[in-house]
Amino acid sequence: MPKYVYFFGKGEGEGDASMKDLLGGKGANLAQMAKMGFPVPPGFTISTEVCTYFYQNGQNYPKELKAQVEEALKGVEKERGSVFGDKENPLLFSVRSGARISMPGMMNTVLNLGLNDEITEKLAESNARFAWNSYWRFIFMFADVVMALPKEELDEALEGVKKEKGYKLDVELLAEDWKEAAQRLKNKVSVLAGREIPQDPHIQLWEAVGAVFKSWNTPRAITYRRLNRIPEEWGTAVNVQSMAFGNINDQSASGVGFTRNPSTGDKNLYGEFLPNAQGEDVVAGIRTPQPISELEKTFPECYSQLLEISKKLEEYFKDMQDIEFTIENGKLWMLQTRTGKRTAQAAVRIALDMVEEKRIDKKEALLRIDPKSVESFFRPSFDPKAAKKVIAKGLPASPGAAVGEAVFDSDEAVRLMEEGRKVILVRMETSPDDIHGIDAAQGVLTSRGGYTSHAALVTRGMGKPGIVGCETIFVDHKKEQFEADGIVVKKGDKISIDGTSGEVLLGEVPTLEAAVSGDLGKIMEWADEERALRVFANADTPAQAKQSKDFGAEGIGLCRTEHMFFEESRIEIFQEMILAKDKEARESALAEILPLQKSDFIEIFKAMEGRPVIIRLLDPPLHEFLPKEEGDIKSLAQKIGVSEEELKSQAESLKELNPMLGHRGVRLAIVYPEIYQMQARAIMEAVCELAKEGVKVSPEIMIPLVVSLEEFNIIKDLIEDVCREVKDSYQVNPEYKIGTMIETPRAALLAGKIATAAEFFSFGTNDLTQTTLGISRDDAGRFLPKYLEKKIFKDDPFLSLDQEGVGSLIKVGVRAGREANKDIQVGICGEHGGDPETIEFCHKIELDYVSCSPFRIPVARLAAAQAKIKSKIN
Amino acid sequence: MPKYVYFFGKGEGEGDASMKDLLGGKGANLAQMAKMGFPVPPGFTISTEVCTYFYQNGQNYPKELKAQVEEALKGVEKERGSVFGDKENPLLFSVRSGARISMPGMMNTVLNLGLNDEITEKLAESNARFAWNSYWRFIFMFADVVMALPKEELDEALEGVKKEKGYKLDVELLAEDWKEAAQRLKNKVSVLAGREIPQDPHIQLWEAVGAVFKSWNTPRAITYRRLNRIPEEWGTAVNVQSMAFGNINDQSASGVGFTRNPSTGDKNLYGEFLPNAQGEDVVAGIRTPQPISELEKTFPECYSQLLEISKKLEEYFKDMQDIEFTIENGKLWMLQTRTGKRTAQAAVRIALDMVEEKRIDKKEALLRIDPKSVESFFRPSFDPKAAKKVIAKGLPASPGAAVGEAVFDSDEAVRLMEEGRKVILVRMETSPDDIHGIDAAQGVLTSRGGYTSHAALVTRGMGKPGIVGCETIFVDHKKEQFEADGIVVKKGDKISIDGTSGEVLLGEVPTLEAAVSGDLGKIMEWADEERALRVFANADTPAQAKQSKDFGAEGIGLCRTEHMFFEESRIEIFQEMILAKDKEARESALAEILPLQKSDFIEIFKAMEGRPVIIRLLDPPLHEFLPKEEGDIKSLAQKIGVSEEELKSQAESLKELNPMLGHRGVRLAIVYPEIYQMQARAIMEAVCELAKEGVKVSPEIMIPLVVSLEEFNIIKDLIEDVCREVKDSYQVNPEYKIGTMIETPRAALLAGKIATAAEFFSFGTNDLTQTTLGISRDDAGRFLPKYLEKKIFKDDPFLSLDQEGVGSLIKVGVRAGREANKDIQVGICGEHGGDPETIEFCHKIELDYVSCSPFRIPVARLAAAQAKIKSKIN
Repeated sequence: MPKYVYFFGKGEGEGDASMKDLLGGKGANLAQMAKMGFPVPPGFTISTEVCTYFYQNGQNYPKELKAQVEEALKGVEKERGSVFGDKENPLLFSVRSGARISMPGMMNTVLNLGLNDEITEKLAESNARFAWNSYWRFIFMFADVVMALPKEELDEALEGVKKEKGYKLDVELLAEDWKEAAQRLKNKVSVLAGREIPQDPHIQLWEAVGAVFKSWNTPRAITYRRLNRIPEEWGTAVNVQSMAFGNINDQSASGVGFTRNPSTGDKNLYGEFLPNAQGEDVVAGIRTPQPISELEKTFPECYSQLLEISKKLEEYFKDMQDIEFTIENGKLWMLQTRTGKRTAQAAVRIALDMVEEKRIDKKEALLRIDPKSVESFFRPSFDPKAAKKVIAKGLPASPGAAVGEAVFDSDEAVRLMEEGRKVILVRMETSPDDIHGIDAAQGVLTSRGGYTSHAALVTRGMGKPGIVGCETIFVDHKKEQFEADGIVVKKGDKISIDGTSGEVLLGEVPTLEAAVSGDLGKIMEWADEERALRVFANADTPAQAKQSKDFGAEGIGLCRTEHMFFEESRIEIFQEMILAKDKEARESALAEILPLQKSDFIEIFKAMEGRPVIIRLLDPPLHEFLPKEEGDIKSLAQKIGVSEEELKSQAESLKELNPMLGHRGVRLAIVYPEIYQMQARAIMEAVCELAKEGVKVSPEIMIPLVVSLEEFNIIKDLIEDVCREVKDSYQVNPEYKIGTMIETPRAALLAGKIATAAEFFSFGTNDLTQTTLGISRDDAGRFLPKYLEKKIFKDDPFLSLDQEGVGSLIKVGVRAGREANKDIQVGICGEHGGDPETIEFCHKIELDYVSCSPFRIPVARLAAAQAKIKSKIN
Repeated sequence: MPKYVYFFGKGEGEGDASMKDLLGGKGANLAQMAKMGFPVPPGFTISTEVCTYFYQNGQNYPKELKAQVEEALKGVEKERGSVFGDKENPLLFSVRSGARISMPGMMNTVLNLGLNDEITEKLAESNARFAWNSYWRFIFMFADVVMALPKEELDEALEGVKKEKGYKLDVELLAEDWKEAAQRLKNKVSVLAGREIPQDPHIQLWEAVGAVFKSWNTPRAITYRRLNRIPEEWGTAVNVQSMAFGNINDQSASGVGFTRNPSTGDKNLYGEFLPNAQGEDVVAGIRTPQPISELEKTFPECYSQLLEISKKLEEYFKDMQDIEFTIENGKLWMLQTRTGKRTAQAAVRIALDMVEEKRIDKKEALLRIDPKSVESFFRPSFDPKAAKKVIAKGLPASPGAAVGEAVFDSDEAVRLMEEGRKVILVRMETSPDDIHGIDAAQGVLTSRGGYTSHAALVTRGMGKPGIVGCETIFVDHKKEQFEADGIVVKKGDKISIDGTSGEVLLGEVPTLEAAVSGDLGKIMEWADEERALRVFANADTPAQAKQSKDFGAEGIGLCRTEHMFFEESRIEIFQEMILAKDKEARESALAEILPLQKSDFIEIFKAMEGRPVIIRLLDPPLHEFLPKEEGDIKSLAQKIGVSEEELKSQAESLKELNPMLGHRGVRLAIVYPEIYQMQARAIMEAVCELAKEGVKVSPEIMIPLVVSLEEFNIIKDLIEDVCREVKDSYQVNPEYKIGTMIETPRAALLAGKIATAAEFFSFGTNDLTQTTLGISRDDAGRFLPKYLEKKIFKDDPFLSLDQEGVGSLIKVGVRAGREANKDIQVGICGEHGGDPETIEFCHKIELDYVSCSPFRIPVARLAAAQAKIKSKIN
């Protein structure tokens, strides 16, 4: 008979921590804790197989389920010495979801299940306030979660009572007030739902279980899964656990904590608790809780027990744990343990410490750190020397510095972000409905909540700055402003937040760049020992080159020569070249450009100290560089001595219908060879000048957008002629390479031919994705979101490589290229070079290097190491 | 010792007709004719291997060459009984190029080589006029071809004499005038070249041989090779042949002819001759020659000898021959034979006749016809009922009707063509320098020249209408006009020319469509018996569907539903749909469109009488349909009730940076499913309505731009839902297929997956070429010509499939698709479907069908048959 229900209780667990797939993370770990002898309120887990069955069978359960649940219920009753549905000695349950991996805030919970009018009346005889408050909570949660009634309407019952009584806070309510609130809520529910809250606890249970399974497919759960790449097929388990009450009296409390500090990684039990409260109160952030260290004073025995349990949990799980507990009338109950989320900084610190503590080895330490999170190390911090106007200070929930316009609404945050504006989301508190707003914002500031509030968890998870519980600011959502220290900050006003210190700053505070050092430096060192892939940088200027080297780049994989002209002082010369009426005029403009490029190359070569520098010759369509603003047009027209009219009509004639597939890349040089001749000359003069000074340089000249060997050879010959001439005139003979970007499907398909002449390939995955999928990145906004929503694409193919399509072309190109030329050096450049999944793919197909933007170099170094470690494990 | 020189003479030839690769076409056939005992002036051929050697060795000759040439010279001297360089009894030579296949007018020739001052003086003693005229010719040709001096300057010598003497025509010149002209020309040459014309005949010979080899790489030779796909490596041979003089006296003549009529295919010796002239005079078209039948009167013996030789040549070569001959003082000399160019009509006629004559079999007959030429059968002819104003009549050199603006310059013709204008090139005569102009024009009209003049040969070769020798028009190149019958036609005025009748018509004469019948019908019948590939049509309207069926289409391979909206009466409804603000508005506009589409589908299905009809759902980006003209914007704004401003801004917001890669194809339906729902409904209602009437229909619904199985399945489900509903409501159950276009590289790479759900694939080679090469067809004009010029691409990849790149993707897609679904039907649509080379490729990779535009259906039928025949031979 298939087993669907797994019991856990005192010293006993039918499951254990290894059974997350079947029991979900929460259920497996509850069973594990029970097995380890920790005080876990007994209960049982309905496995994820039931969820799968449920969706595959028209939302019905397997026939064996009922009996198994009944049996498990009996076991709980026995252990707790109370009976489900019994009015004398009632057993109450919490019903929670539990997927394979933690999905905070995404799934719905019902507490105090098992209460009804009769039982509550009876319970009230001994503890009236607790009884009616608990009943009100049950009704509210059941109505919200199971019956899906609108929260705002449900709120009215309690608000009505408070208003009539003149209360401000919930704690002011007396037992009879809670009773009144519960009654009113019950009536409200029957009006709204057209039916009563079920009075039969068994019906309550089955409805709640069904609601958990159904909640697996709510839009917000689907969104979360998509964002976190959780397969739909996994399903959720349901945990039915007997209640422990943190709100039974003042000898009770609820708390959450981490076995180490999730912000810094420091080795202290860390967290907070609320006396006389249920767990939801702590997480919701409505009351600001006390630090967990205070527990030592108020509940010393529980505190030392908690320390002991924490230690044992870490020993068992070999990782920092995120725990939930309740103290019921002086007795500690463990409600949950799971591997804790942490900041990138903490992840690194903890991994290092755990290696030192000999709990894990270096490889395991490397695997412990999410490569993407490493990027947050390099979010700029505020310049300590800058003048700062601190207007408030909150809890530093997620480190880093962020600057942006204050916005008070998540939809608005998304809208402004899409306009290219940077925003800080300011809220009284955040909820799962704000995920898209937090995602769009540079950082988040809330006036309520603690370190474990929603805003804190989510910003930490996303690696962006967050300040919570900033109680000295007064947020007015309606007026779209907040007040702090007498200053009113309106929507659109610039503010800066420091997630490391918790300071809220007025205006735009200048930021400082970051560098790899300390803890991360150690991790990077280990990663470098491990990885096979080399990591290069996409760097276009001497400053970027220096920065990349500081971040550990082993070379420059993509130096875009056109970016050298984005400076205002240079763009007009470039525009003059573009608008040249004949070869002579073009060559004369190019002659002006040459020394500028050359001096940039000299600085870049110097910065890279002999490491390879792959320089891509001019790539974009020329018309992209022409002025669009009236003022710029006027200025350029004057400079080159034509009328504005003429300039405009010339620019018009250069326009293209599909510039992405137009006259760009090597095609420019096939028509205007003098452009690449100038660039080759600038490179080689820089090389030769340094060579004469004895400076080592490793230049590699890259021809973009090649589609055939013939095309490559024509340009290769042209470059070689120039290089020969320059070398002769300098009388030195430095080495250099000539290679190509593979960024059209044809180039990948014909890589075997091209490799007979090219010394290196760099897969330009941005353009290769555009051409292989036939999707213009600039225009994809109209349909790509739908494609992600409908799961046509698992990920945005412009962020994470489309391995099946683009990846298979790359494989074809690499194989054919290496067959034809075993010494060919092969790598990728483009956005994907810094994406960990893509890096793993690159490792598997044995590329030589990946090249990514400077800030992502450490991400890539770590991801490359992980790829190697994983490939050995599998 | 390698053999480089091949002798031919009386009854003897070291080579034969099979040795074209080595001796070139001309040399091989001269040897063959000599072997067959025909009167060929003796000479020798320097092989193409020398040309290859020449270019591979810095323009030097192999060391053995000199001795071999000397020996061959001796053989010629012996046979002719005269001596090269001897003043008493001089032997003169022509030096001509001769590549593997005929390249008319492309290569340079030197006649009368061996003359110098001394020899001419001596020769003049017996025939002064001939001697000085021949010397003048030699100097002119040598100066032009070998010394590359400007013709216009060289012309001045003769023109000066004529002017001084008051002559109009060359024939008026007396012996002393020619002597004077030769002297002046000699002086001119030494001034221009800074050196004398060599007086040593051996030096003349070697310089001329070198010039022939060098002429292999002149720009116009390169252009010709590119247009005709002749590999550069082939090289040319040099034919050194003793002279026969058609201009020695009135008992002499030069002529050219065809063993059958090259315009109609009629079985008569056909051609023309000029008495007392050298061959160049006939071909140049300066004097209008006499029909060859006149030869019977003036040179009866030669005529009957020529008839006999013609017959034997046809027997040997099994094809119509193009011959050149000279009569020197009553004796016939054969100068050349080669397979003759012919019109498409003549090619068909001759092939049919040759089968009847049992010279060749049906397969050989099919191979004899250039599939591309078949298209000219379907050039429209003028409506016989239309009013016509005939202003002149010339020789009908190349059949067909053409209409366009008169232009008088080839560069201008190209310029206007590129602007999308249709032109008729009008010239006094054309020369090889006009090839680009002829290529750009709809047709050509010249006032001079005969059937074998340059203009006649070239228009026939290109399959476009041509009238030559239209002596009643007076062309003034300077004023850019011509006068005919008192009417002045200026540049830009519309004229019509009928290449079948030779009539020049004023204005734009309406034309009639063509149909397959008669001779071509027979050929098509044979082709259909032979071919394996099915031939479908790209047809978007009921009229096109009917036409395709008349041309032999076995189905419609591509019915572009958007083309149904190009009609003015329909476009505004469509625009309304595009601009709909929400789904409701869009659906209401779609509801208006539905009956229009449905009625079109009904007509198309009826026209195709049960043959498959593949209907592609909406493909282009919506913004392409929005009005651009102010008037249209105003009208649309009124119709949909918004301001013009608003309409413009809405249109602006729909614009895309790269529409080719934008929101189009299936992506439209992923975002707006209602569009495809409407189209599926229109198709299925049409199908069901006909099914109820008992009309057989085979509808296939094609989803464009698919990149993944998931995407395909979402739309397939959507279509199937609609179809089920429609079928239920009509209570019929007709069959239909759902398939996809494969037009992105990703789709080809993932074809194996997509084929699990798709019932057919149609490779959309236009878009697949754009994406695989990363080239926008609309923008390629700026660089593609350079790519063809530099031989980066052998052919325009948008006209003939890039087999190496795009073709290899198609192969991948076909293989994977068939492996996954053995019943899948696979074909191509797009421009390439009518290209014979592409069709051969499609046959090789075993596609089921090709689909092309209606006029190219017969081309495709023939090409498909040829592909099959060729694949059996190889």
